[in-house]
Amino acid sequence: MRIALGIEYDGTAYNGWQRQNFGLGVQEIIERALVKVADHEVETFCAGRTDAGVHATGQVIHFDTSSERQNRGWLLGVNSYLPDDISVRWARHVGENFHARFSAISRNYSYLILNRLERSAIYRNCAWWVHKPLKVKDMNIASQYLLGEHDFSAFRAAGCGANSSVRKIMKISIEREGDWIKLNVTANAFLQHMVRNIVGTLITVGEGNKSADWLKDILNSGDRKKAGVAAPPHGLTLVSVDYPSSAGIPIFIEDD
Amino acid sequence: MRIALGIEYDGTAYNGWQRQNFGLGVQEIIERALVKVADHEVETFCAGRTDAGVHATGQVIHFDTSSERQNRGWLLGVNSYLPDDISVRWARHVGENFHARFSAISRNYSYLILNRLERSAIYRNCAWWVHKPLKVKDMNIASQYLLGEHDFSAFRAAGCGANSSVRKIMKISIEREGDWIKLNVTANAFLQHMVRNIVGTLITVGEGNKSADWLKDILNSGDRKKAGVAAPPHGLTLVSVDYPSSAGIPIFIEDD
Repeated sequence: MRIALGIEYDGTAYNGWQRQNFGLGVQEIIERALVKVADHEVETFCAGRTDAGVHATGQVIHFDTSSERQNRGWLLGVNSYLPDDISVRWARHVGENFHARFSAISRNYSYLILNRLERSAIYRNCAWWVHKPLKVKDMNIASQYLLGEHDFSAFRAAGCGANSSVRKIMKISIEREGDWIKLNVTANAFLQHMVRNIVGTLITVGEGNKSADWLKDILNSGDRKKAGVAAPPHGLTLVSVDYPSSAGIPIFIEDD
Repeated sequence: MRIALGIEYDGTAYNGWQRQNFGLGVQEIIERALVKVADHEVETFCAGRTDAGVHATGQVIHFDTSSERQNRGWLLGVNSYLPDDISVRWARHVGENFHARFSAISRNYSYLILNRLERSAIYRNCAWWVHKPLKVKDMNIASQYLLGEHDFSAFRAAGCGANSSVRKIMKISIEREGDWIKLNVTANAFLQHMVRNIVGTLITVGEGNKSADWLKDILNSGDRKKAGVAAPPHGLTLVSVDYPSSAGIPIFIEDD
């Protein structure tokens, strides 16, 4: 049987999703919990391999098991073995052809910025504090140059192992609400550090150091050195993953 | 000169506001930072002595100093010496007759409950997870019996050192938004554990074990043993403190 799980985590304490040579990946913690519920070794596959310090409210994973348990049993059982900064939101039996990574149509990330003079104690781990006032309208205009299918080499980490640097951004927007600025972006897939490099570059526009159409030049150059520095990981959250409706994955996170 | 500060903290790591015989109080951390900016010993007075694990977004404190600094200097200077789970939101020079505790007209607390089958990793430290479905309308009706001036002995901690157990609740409400339930309560002042004991008692009503008017019986009995168990501290936040407008304390938390 194949089971899909919706996973939420505070990435602060972890060295990203993947099993690591050093540090602790979220994957390792979840697989250890799954072994206790499944009573056999478990290998998981995820929709988005988040970096160290990046959070998720809607990560999706799948694994195969020979253990017969109801969705509710997987949900409550695995949660009981997880530390309190990782939780399962839902569990579903899915078809054998479902794959958390390859069946995904698109991924939705958000990046949260706190834009005011003083930092926040409460939100220290989930928002990037930028004290210089940002021109969010200009950032939003700039972001629209990234819409569509492009070679995103200029926004790709040096160590990114993807075969192709072509990705398709379906939606991107940045809005301000008081001191809070939120970027929402949807793409078929993302290169390593792609969202953080986009945010870091948009900040340069927001600070007034570059005009909005500079983004087009950066994108066309394909040159990582021309773009801004990567925004820190802790503002970034993997919000949700979209699948064909036939996969039976819940669209709205809801009680099981 | 007398300076007032607006303080935000994640109470998770601290043993409450006050300087402690064991553990670390938020007060101690702030006074250490103030000494570095003021260049002399500093004693602070706060509006609300929060318990261990309780948070604040709008704690107000004051202290006296002989150091001449602008509001912005106090704000940025003290923040630079504080750990990242405590922050100053604003600083104001106030009159010598201002007192963070005794000038306060009322305190506003909120208590957040996550009411669904599965726990949350992201909100683990700022909301009480209650998995059994709660009847929030009944809880809200019950809460209205507490409005006004009463002897709140039934909702007072055994170790509470207040001279009088009479307090006046000006506003109290509980509302649901999806899986989230929030209690907002305003009183002239609170007894030790008063909000947490109220929430714990309202939960008994929300679970359907008691009717709404049971709250009236508890209140009238003055007997702590009849009320529910205290709700855990991590759902509770000191949101704001109200002062006469003449004190010059910012009503809306805003950039300095």
